[in-house]
Amino acid sequence: MSAAITLTTDFGSTDAYVAAMKGVMLGVNPDSNIIDICHSIKPQDISHAAFVLSTVYQFFPAKTIHVVVVDPGVGTERRAVILRTPAADFVAPDNGVLSYVIQRESKSFVPNTTRRKIKLGPELQAVAITKSQFWRSPVSPTFHGRDIFAPVAARLSLGMSPLDFGESINSLTILPLPRPHKEGDSLTGEIIHVDSFGNLITDIREGDLPPDRQILVEVGGQRIAGLARTYADRNGLTALFGSSGYLEVAFNGGNAREFLNARVGDSVLLKYPKSQP
Amino acid sequence: MSAAITLTTDFGSTDAYVAAMKGVMLGVNPDSNIIDICHSIKPQDISHAAFVLSTVYQFFPAKTIHVVVVDPGVGTERRAVILRTPAADFVAPDNGVLSYVIQRESKSFVPNTTRRKIKLGPELQAVAITKSQFWRSPVSPTFHGRDIFAPVAARLSLGMSPLDFGESINSLTILPLPRPHKEGDSLTGEIIHVDSFGNLITDIREGDLPPDRQILVEVGGQRIAGLARTYADRNGLTALFGSSGYLEVAFNGGNAREFLNARVGDSVLLKYPKSQP
Amino acid sequence: MSAAITLTTDFGSTDAYVAAMKGVMLGVNPDSNIIDICHSIKPQDISHAAFVLSTVYQFFPAKTIHVVVVDPGVGTERRAVILRTPAADFVAPDNGVLSYVIQRESKSFVPNTTRRKIKLGPELQAVAITKSQFWRSPVSPTFHGRDIFAPVAARLSLGMSPLDFGESINSLTILPLPRPHKEGDSLTGEIIHVDSFGNLITDIREGDLPPDRQILVEVGGQRIAGLARTYADRNGLTALFGSSGYLEVAFNGGNAREFLNARVGDSVLLKYPKSQP
Repeated sequence: MSAAITLTTDFGSTDAYVAAMKGVMLGVNPDSNIIDICHSIKPQDISHAAFVLSTVYQFFPAKTIHVVVVDPGVGTERRAVILRTPAADFVAPDNGVLSYVIQRESKSFVPNTTRRKIKLGPELQAVAITKSQFWRSPVSPTFHGRDIFAPVAARLSLGMSPLDFGESINSLTILPLPRPHKEGDSLTGEIIHVDSFGNLITDIREGDLPPDRQILVEVGGQRIAGLARTYADRNGLTALFGSSGYLEVAFNGGNAREFLNARVGDSVLLKYPKSQP
Repeated sequence: MSAAITLTTDFGSTDAYVAAMKGVMLGVNPDSNIIDICHSIKPQDISHAAFVLSTVYQFFPAKTIHVVVVDPGVGTERRAVILRTPAADFVAPDNGVLSYVIQRESKSFVPNTTRRKIKLGPELQAVAITKSQFWRSPVSPTFHGRDIFAPVAARLSLGMSPLDFGESINSLTILPLPRPHKEGDSLTGEIIHVDSFGNLITDIREGDLPPDRQILVEVGGQRIAGLARTYADRNGLTALFGSSGYLEVAFNGGNAREFLNARVGDSVLLKYPKSQP
Repeated sequence: MSAAITLTTDFGSTDAYVAAMKGVMLGVNPDSNIIDICHSIKPQDISHAAFVLSTVYQFFPAKTIHVVVVDPGVGTERRAVILRTPAADFVAPDNGVLSYVIQRESKSFVPNTTRRKIKLGPELQAVAITKSQFWRSPVSPTFHGRDIFAPVAARLSLGMSPLDFGESINSLTILPLPRPHKEGDSLTGEIIHVDSFGNLITDIREGDLPPDRQILVEVGGQRIAGLARTYADRNGLTALFGSSGYLEVAFNGGNAREFLNARVGDSVLLKYPKSQP
């Protein structure tokens, strides 16, 4: 069985764009094993795609090929790239959509305060996709997903090497990623994703907190004392570390987004005073 | 080819939860043949999931593994179970989501008036999933679908036996299922599902009616005389036995839900007076 | 690996109808490689399905089997057919849903001004699906997709011949397809599809325009001077030939449908005056 190929796009579910990519892949590798990750990325929202990808690629077997097509610059000078990490291969525009992947898979610290090119360590191999003999011809200037990314990914799944598709490059674009900031005994993060249950997923990870402290969460004018372990632990508003490793605010038996009228970008404050005598 | 694995969840289509489960399955069995049944179950609506599953599992080949993750009690003491029937295997929380399956696949009558544990006949084999060596580690307390159900289902698809995953149990939870009630020459049922065409699917099955009677259907203040065979038989409101075997109310060229302003739970009255001279 | 089978339906994503078809296919051919094209066709909108199919089938490998179930006449006397072209096989109701395919794959000109039967050239082989021994039994009068099209398509994927399923026929139904009309140095087309980005896709193809002319596009009271090559070429409203070969109106950084309050059927005027001195 070929390595699986996953697709993450902002194409939605009402058009045939995703299917066109699959058709091209099947033409190159009839055994293509194609898995949809998500096609509901907000249109052209690179940060959203970067986040969704970061919550899921690690659950796929090594050598999986993750294709991301959230590509507002399609047809312009932005590069198309392959990134090979120990965890997986990625085929994507070089527009920052791999920011979280680069940060996680790099052995050294990757700052992310501004949009810029990041030099890659030797654990990460990147290639600019330039050899057009492996593309569909002619290439539509508005659909590189179908005409470049799809045939390249399918050929990777047949065992071709990233270097077959272009020259090695040593830097990739990274976006400024939301990160919580500390101030004394508190931490301010923000909501970076709202899932279909209305759970509010923040940029705060377990390692951002000191161990063994009482936590007080403030969000949307509400306070939540202490962290739960499961959604069903408590009635009403709940805060817990969710399955992707991020702090979430949920509402047992309801919908936290609706209850708090919350949205992506809203801030979430955590306080963890030292225990009082 | 491995036995197919199907997925029925309330995860929606905007997140990567479904894909995370698929990734885990591919890690266990790279040949996993995974089919989506439905991810639009109303959040945490166990009855809805039980109904949708009941309309489709019988169309898959025997030995298919149906995974259901509608699991408001995830991480609490509710059990995770495997149910093996002659028709298929099921991997699900023991929260009633298999109610219709148990009722259909049992050789003896299964009452369903209250939520309770039902003793299973010998035609049904059930196992409590307890052997954690076959799970992902660590297990997220909020996502057993990914960390327990997915690897267990993938191992079943490789040919492992249900008993490899835990001890045999002899009862499962069943929910009170809507059932029509008779009174003289009439039958009162209810709408249990509205499909995306706006067709109103009721809990009334063909066997609930006496044969060869004129039928009068009353729903939402409207009367429909007689049953049709196809959606196109008549103009406007139509009642017929649909492809899942349940009585449906449809609107040829329109949308019955909108026309009747109907919703799940609304009652549907059938009258079948003896023919008059 | 069997030939891939694609599915295009108006079943939406909230029901298990699509999955039931897949289950039946897997029962016939456990190696069925089933790809979803689109299940968001507007309910019973045959023209919409015909258009969506026409934008995608050519990207699949030859011998792919495309199943289309947009079938308001299900259970009535409308025929079910197999159409074999050099590009692919199609399994569909004979209700016009293959109109674009027939037009493209015919060697001779196919007029499309009224709904009617079109005689097929020898490059196209059509068969009426009549041999019920290859169907599920009993056949639901409301779901031929599951009980007729699915098992027939799965058997085609196993290598059976179209003629195994019924007798050869020499004509198929074609619908009046929207076509732009010329008047002097202008062309009036219409919007035939709005994609999930809000791009307005018209019925105007590149060959409909004289080469090397300045183009002025008028739509929704707005004027667009000249055609762009990519979505990112310009700010605001843009017109370009999209990846399916049709003229599209897009809005860089926004949504053309919302900006213009446009909808399917709205007219789009192109002017291409001879260059002035």
